[in-house]
Amino acid sequence: MSLLEDLKWRYATKKMNGAIVPQEKLDYILEAARLAPSSSGLQPYKIFVISNEELKKKIQPVAWNQSQIVDASHLLVFAAWDDYTLDRIEDVFNYTMDERGLPHSTMDEYKKTLWSLYEPLSTESHAHHAAKQSYISFALAIAAAAEQKVDATPIEGFVPPKVDELLELDKQGLKSTLILALGYREEENDWLVNMKKVRTPKEEFITEIK
Amino acid sequence: MSLLEDLKWRYATKKMNGAIVPQEKLDYILEAARLAPSSSGLQPYKIFVISNEELKKKIQPVAWNQSQIVDASHLLVFAAWDDYTLDRIEDVFNYTMDERGLPHSTMDEYKKTLWSLYEPLSTESHAHHAAKQSYISFALAIAAAAEQKVDATPIEGFVPPKVDELLELDKQGLKSTLILALGYREEENDWLVNMKKVRTPKEEFITEIK
Repeated sequence: MSLLEDLKWRYATKKMNGAIVPQEKLDYILEAARLAPSSSGLQPYKIFVISNEELKKKIQPVAWNQSQIVDASHLLVFAAWDDYTLDRIEDVFNYTMDERGLPHSTMDEYKKTLWSLYEPLSTESHAHHAAKQSYISFALAIAAAAEQKVDATPIEGFVPPKVDELLELDKQGLKSTLILALGYREEENDWLVNMKKVRTPKEEFITEIK
Repeated sequence: MSLLEDLKWRYATKKMNGAIVPQEKLDYILEAARLAPSSSGLQPYKIFVISNEELKKKIQPVAWNQSQIVDASHLLVFAAWDDYTLDRIEDVFNYTMDERGLPHSTMDEYKKTLWSLYEPLSTESHAHHAAKQSYISFALAIAAAAEQKVDATPIEGFVPPKVDELLELDKQGLKSTLILALGYREEENDWLVNMKKVRTPKEEFITEIK
């Protein structure tokens, strides 16, 4: 199946049946998320993969009691940097240069320019910018899950500070941004499964300037 | 090729050769972007597809003079709502219900809850939230381009208010968020094409909680 067919197949699964996603498929989805591009290649986010039942039960009440939180096989919690710092940027750039067999100084000029753009911005702006990058990774995880015929529910409906607390994210300088519940649909109890997928009509969505 | 292979094939193309992306492939990429999921299905963004040479030349200086801006076949400019309003939300929900053959009132309770969450937030928060949704669509366009073996450069490096001005986005209640340059790589002049793709190592990127 093509990506387009996969995107038509997928939907925000409202009821999952508790079946477990095989490790191989989970690894595939996580690898797609890891390969996502990000601004300046900083990848300012991480993923927490939760299959622990007790923790899922603790997350559910701070996620509008959605059933998928506990019926999912795994929850992927995306968590982005709470701030950009020169140290964090240098760590990534130095690692990239090491992997490419280039001296760290290769990035000096670019790093200087980048920091001159980030430094004047507020911590909140930094966090928004980092969070936005995690949405790219999130989308690729959704596409990968669909390709693997794993159902997925994209979830923004949760209280990030509560999830941050449960995962002790502040100690790691992270803030939760998104949850992707992975599992399998329970068709007979899912009100959305047979509903028409509706999107902005093409002629409204796209403006061509030739 | 699988999505994972496509993601390994792709890279942020630094030098494009000016060749034109066929309409069929362009349509495919745009359709993937259109099918992207978004928070509450609002799809609070649009895409401007720019092949006009004069306009590309005007965008280049406000996009760090990147060569891909003019060497690309098409620029996809993603632009998100500058604000959430009850009217905008109602329009989308009503259209969705019409398409599903359900009465508008089906969404009344959900709409009320959603608006109670959005209303207290600032216009700036609304714009960030809408912008974040556009990143999901952007990522799926990147994946679709890679599947179609069309090169793409994800571009955040531009001055959004200047692009907004060029496209007269304020009249439409939109703000530019991202540019995806679509085209074909010019390998011999692209410093990145043969560099190792570097990402956060898996063991750092992923934390499993079993």
